[in-house]
Order: sequence, then structure tokens, then C-alpha cells
Amino acid sequence: MGNRITDLLKIKYPVIQGGMVWCSGWKLASAVSNNGGLGLLGAGSMTPDVLREHITKCRAATKQPFGVNVPLIYQEIDGIMKVIIEEGVKIVFSSAGNPKTWTGKLKDSGITVVHVVSSSKFAKKAEDAGVDAVVAEGFEAGGHNGREETGTFALIPQVRKAVSLPLIAAGGIGTGEGILAAMSLGADGVQMGTRFALSEESSASVEFKRLCITLNEGDTLLSLKKLSPARLIKNELFNKIKELEDRGADADELLELLGRGRTRTGMFDGDLVNGELEIGQITSLIREIEPVETIMKKTVSEFNNALKKLKSTDGW
Amino acid sequence: MGNRITDLLKIKYPVIQGGMVWCSGWKLASAVSNNGGLGLLGAGSMTPDVLREHITKCRAATKQPFGVNVPLIYQEIDGIMKVIIEEGVKIVFSSAGNPKTWTGKLKDSGITVVHVVSSSKFAKKAEDAGVDAVVAEGFEAGGHNGREETGTFALIPQVRKAVSLPLIAAGGIGTGEGILAAMSLGADGVQMGTRFALSEESSASVEFKRLCITLNEGDTLLSLKKLSPARLIKNELFNKIKELEDRGADADELLELLGRGRTRTGMFDGDLVNGELEIGQITSLIREIEPVETIMKKTVSEFNNALKKLKSTDGW
Repeated sequence: MGNRITDLLKIKYPVIQGGMVWCSGWKLASAVSNNGGLGLLGAGSMTPDVLREHITKCRAATKQPFGVNVPLIYQEIDGIMKVIIEEGVKIVFSSAGNPKTWTGKLKDSGITVVHVVSSSKFAKKAEDAGVDAVVAEGFEAGGHNGREETGTFALIPQVRKAVSLPLIAAGGIGTGEGILAAMSLGADGVQMGTRFALSEESSASVEFKRLCITLNEGDTLLSLKKLSPARLIKNELFNKIKELEDRGADADELLELLGRGRTRTGMFDGDLVNGELEIGQITSLIREIEPVETIMKKTVSEFNNALKKLKSTDGW
Repeated sequence: MGNRITDLLKIKYPVIQGGMVWCSGWKLASAVSNNGGLGLLGAGSMTPDVLREHITKCRAATKQPFGVNVPLIYQEIDGIMKVIIEEGVKIVFSSAGNPKTWTGKLKDSGITVVHVVSSSKFAKKAEDAGVDAVVAEGFEAGGHNGREETGTFALIPQVRKAVSLPLIAAGGIGTGEGILAAMSLGADGVQMGTRFALSEESSASVEFKRLCITLNEGDTLLSLKKLSPARLIKNELFNKIKELEDRGADADELLELLGRGRTRTGMFDGDLVNGELEIGQITSLIREIEPVETIMKKTVSEFNNALKKLKSTDGW
């Protein structure tokens, strides 16, 4: 078909798998790339050495393009970027930080750079920094989230108006119908996190995945706003956080409760009580853990059916 | 064209004007109905006598169908419903309360009943109560809002799956592209509040409207979660509320700060400092105060253009 996103990333479908912490290793990324989307390794939960291993294994598992998601505020960012450049990775999705710092260096190494934003203001900054495309991610998304709390329905047209870059919509999208809706709002492609986090190939613990496919609307909420806002499942840890927040606790108290490594505890080790469990709102629509091949086939078929239905709609 | 919403409500376009407090008098409702949508009077800020006056004037100003929005938790609900039935109103949109209490009585009087919900659970309850259609309103919407905080992108497919009723999408929709996106997700029509609140015919104060068309993403936030969550503009009153909330104030303290009549003060009287200012996230996309006729013409043309564009899209 060919659009600005498939052309830029040299992929078949404009469907990107979000590079999520504890979910997005080489198995997931290569499966998505092998099925016509773009797989992303999630460097946010990897040391530089572990990332190198995943890049090597991903390359062995697919001949198709794949990339790495890098949260720019990550402590070991220099080591991560060194590995990415040394290993000849062709695509980087950066997030959570200033795109000015790394975009130039990455592009000098021939890397396509896409930056994740939560507002049109940040989209413009990313455009100024020279990125090749932006992901506009709305409030529905799991994990870290913008302070503006702009939902995907309001965010996409706003970013579309603000920048001329290829635009990838994210947040609340987990079906082919969602992709068509995002395109109606002006997106060229989509990033789906939650849908792929709950695939068989995702490296998240099976306990975490099994919990997610039983969740209903309202079972996740944006939390930790005095630190860095994140969408969490309402488990026991969430309730403890909420109790502190409700009585006016400050950032220090929240940090003390959280300690370190809570997302690993929850999502990777499968401690559903004490772990920090990050997933998007669209989890309430996903009721099965399926292989990526099935997910991609269903998504393509949903998209085609929804498009066909719209094509038979009369204009006003 | 004819779809389940236009057939049910006997209107030309499946576009409903949200029945908002302090914005939705007979001038706005009749203008929307005269231009092919469905106008709604907002009973939430009217006494029964004032509502009767607006119904009379609206009927004099349009031969097209119009309706009344009624928040079911309203103190004077009995008086409001009495006026609606006596005046022979044909369409009621109910919200904020249990649809079981009134749906049967209204339908016995030959009234079409549509209920506003924020989740698929409440949509099912509305279906059980016998309503004719539901409005599913997402987190992006202005004013009162669901505790689940589900964004429109995640909400619409969830409600579509849960009920077979005609479905009207709301929250973050203010353009023809947004309408097409909502339809892609399974909606039969849309309700737009913010877009019409900022029209010339809206009874909101010009000060309020002028402020809204300068707002950017993040300039509204969901607030008052310990009372009843509402999306407010970040003005001085909002900052005072936030200060209380940040230090853990309880519902009583918040009620004491708010006092009574704050939405009237802000939205109708135009006190932008001390008033409670309710508007949806899509306000950041609206940069002009226009007559309803222009808004409807633009919306229809945006919808047709977006549909034409999608029709030229290849399937995958």
C-alpha cells in the first residue's frame, strides 16, 4: 500500500509494537517484524550488555527492520546509545527526555529517529530537533504518561495540526478499528503497546498477562502524579500509593514506599501484589493471550473490514 | 443517508449538541436543530419554570426535533420531569443517575430516552432499564466525568461490544474527522459539547468563550475526585482546589471552598477567577467563536472530506 510510515520504516503495515519495559525482548520484536509490523526492543529495562544480546538475537530471528525504544532519562543512556550505534541498529524510538540531546548524533550514524510525545508542544520540539517522525501517545496508554492527560481523541488532531512530520498514534489502540479511527484523525500509523504486551511472545510474566486479560474499564488509573505520572493496575501496591496520595504525601514519601525495581517485580517476576503493574486502558478489550502472528492477522482483517464498512457509508 | 441515530431521533445528521449547564438554552438548541443536528436544552442549570420557558421558545424557533438533557441527581428532578411531560417534549437525554427511576415513566409518555454513560457496565444497566440509545462519554469531556477515567478511544469499542443499542460517542469530538473516527470505532453518531458551547448561540458568557479559544492541551484537568470528578479549566479556583487536594483535604473541606453556584459564576456570569469553568479537552482545537450554521457546515464538510480520503485508502 505505501504510506509515509511504511515508506520511512520499510515495513508492510504501519503498525509499530511499543518498546515496553519487561515485555519487549527479541522474541516479541522479531515476531512483530516477521509479521509485517515494526518490532521494538525495550531498552528501558535492559543494561547495555543485555540490549546487545537482544539485538544480536533479534537480528538472527528476522531479516525485517526492527528498532530499539530508549527512554532518554535512563541512567545508562550513554552505554545504551553506544551499543545501538556499534551494533548498527537502523531505527530508534526515543521517549521521556529532550530529543535535542541525541537526535543529531543518531542521525549522523544513519539511524532513523522517532520521538514519543504527549502534546503538540513537545511534537514541535521534536520536529525542531530533527526527528523523522513522532509518536503522539494519549492518556489511555500504560506506564509513563504526560502531565497534560490529553486523551488520544483530542491529541492526534492537535499534533497533526502542529507538525508536518509522519505521525504515529498511540494510547488506547488495540484493534484494526482503532487503527482506522486513528487514521481518520490524521495519523499515518499506530503504535500498539498493550496488545503486544499480552502476546505469547511478550517477556512479561504469564501471571501478569493472565491478570490483564481479566481487567475491566477503570481497573487501571493514572497514579504517582507527584513523581512521574504512570498508569497502573489497581493492585495492593496501587492502593498503598493511593492511600498516601489521598492524605497528601509528598514525593519523598512516595519514593520511600516504592523503593526500586517494582516494575520488574510485578511485570517480569509476576508478583501481582507488591509489583508496579503497567498496562494501557485497552487491556479491557483483550481477553486472550495470543501469538503475534494471530494478533497481526486479526488486526489486518479488522482494519480491512472496518475500511470496507466505511467505504459503503454515504457522504453527508 | 439514514442510520440508527438519525432514524431514532428523526434528524438529518447524527450530530447531537450536548445539553450543558449554562450554555444550552433555546437559542443554541434551536440553531442546532435548524441546521440538521439535534439540539438539547440543558435542564441542569434551569428551574422547572425556566425550562418551560426555554421549551416554549425553542418550539417557536424550530420545527425540527429537539430534546432536553436532565441530570437525574438534580434536586428539582420531579418538577423538571413534570414540565417535560406536560410540554410534550419528545426526546430526553438523561445523565448522572440511575436510568431505572425515570426511563419507564418517560417512555410511557411516548418520549425517546437516551442515557449518558461512562462505562460498558453502566451502558448495560441503561439497556436493562429500557433506554432507546446510549451516549458513551470519555475522559476528554468537559464537566462531570466518570470515575473510571476511560478515554473515548478505549470506551467506544468497549460499549459497542457490551450493548446492541444505537451508540452515540462523546468526549474529545469536535470535528468531522472526529465523527468519522468515532464511527470507525463502532459509534452510530456523536455528541459534541465543547464545540457548541463555544458557538455564538451558546448562552455561556463571552468572557468564558474567549478564554476557551485560547486554551492549549493540558489547560484543563480532571479535578474534585473526592467529590464528583469534573474537568475544569486551570484558573485561580482550580489552583485553590489543587492546593487543598495536594495536601490531602477531604470532601468537606473541598465543599467548603466551593460553596454554591460556582459554575454559574464562571460560565454564565463570566468571573474567570472565582468561577468553576467546565470545558472539554477538544477546546484546544477550537480557535473561533462561530455561529452554529458555520459550525455545522464545517463539520459536514470535514466529515465528507475525511470520508473521501479514507475511501481512497487501499485495504491491507
